[in-house]
Amino acid sequence: MKNRIITISREFGSGGRTIGKEVAAQLNIPCYDKELIAKMAKESGFAESYVRQQEDAVSSGYLATAFTNRALGETNQDYLWKIQCRVIQNLAEQGPCVIVGRCADYILRDRADCLTAFIHADNGFRAKRIVRVYGERPESPEQRIREKDKRRAAYHQFYTDMKWGYAKNYQICLDSGQLGIQRCVEILKSLY
Amino acid sequence: MKNRIITISREFGSGGRTIGKEVAAQLNIPCYDKELIAKMAKESGFAESYVRQQEDAVSSGYLATAFTNRALGETNQDYLWKIQCRVIQNLAEQGPCVIVGRCADYILRDRADCLTAFIHADNGFRAKRIVRVYGERPESPEQRIREKDKRRAAYHQFYTDMKWGYAKNYQICLDSGQLGIQRCVEILKSLY
Repeated sequence: MKNRIITISREFGSGGRTIGKEVAAQLNIPCYDKELIAKMAKESGFAESYVRQQEDAVSSGYLATAFTNRALGETNQDYLWKIQCRVIQNLAEQGPCVIVGRCADYILRDRADCLTAFIHADNGFRAKRIVRVYGERPESPEQRIREKDKRRAAYHQFYTDMKWGYAKNYQICLDSGQLGIQRCVEILKSLY
Repeated sequence: MKNRIITISREFGSGGRTIGKEVAAQLNIPCYDKELIAKMAKESGFAESYVRQQEDAVSSGYLATAFTNRALGETNQDYLWKIQCRVIQNLAEQGPCVIVGRCADYILRDRADCLTAFIHADNGFRAKRIVRVYGERPESPEQRIREKDKRRAAYHQFYTDMKWGYAKNYQICLDSGQLGIQRCVEILKSLY
């Protein structure tokens, strides 16, 4: 099987995005991450900030309300999910690429040319990293990690019905804290 | 971090044992798998066949009874678990090696020189493999896989309190069905 597309799911702060960008740069193929938001905004007519909110950078009442209120039919989030599927499938059609996040592993599950990766790391590594690299405030980063994890897992499970973080969902899972970001880049590159 | 020891947890039929043996052969270090049984039998005084039974090649009433009957104190299985811990820790002290199965990842969790790997594959790949490679009878191999999975997960969870198959338990998880056994060998070797 020739891998034309690499999808990267990642825990917040694990460096999955950095790994994706570096793999794509070294393979000289595009990496889609924040670009997906812009494309989804364009297709949906919603503002980019609103689209971004729908995955995990959300207000604290999110978990309680996000997956309810469907008695009246499709929510904005469901509508955006369909657009997200279409945007990601179109990108995969266009040519080799790396796609970070947004359940791309699930959306492209029927393609044989996809390498699906999951990047994780322990909470200490991630807490240090979000302060140092993302410039997040240094107060209780562990708590923000827990919240992000919870939201990402809930979003993923709702739309894919797959258990978040379960090894069998992916062809390869890597601990970026133990192995190091560069080593993760090398391994993924070698599998392309 | 220099990896002196590689532990391989694996789903039944995924080729994890083959991968471990091949990695060890190419690195010219010992691989402990069935040898662990002989060492545990020697230390415990139990027959090898009895020791083998305690992990997963067990009779069908096993799951219902294995983890009960502790009102009267330590079971034979608990006693063997302690010996298993000692045997594996001693082997790790003696020098570089590959250890397949037997919760070695958990038993050696406090060592910094351990690379912990989990090998999995989809049921179709494993079903074909246990018939072809292990010479198992060709009738309903999927069912035997499900039973083995269940027992291995229960044993692992009971003694380690870790969710079986969860990516965060391991530094690297590989899908041997999708990536191929040789590719898995190369990746693990490159991390040593």
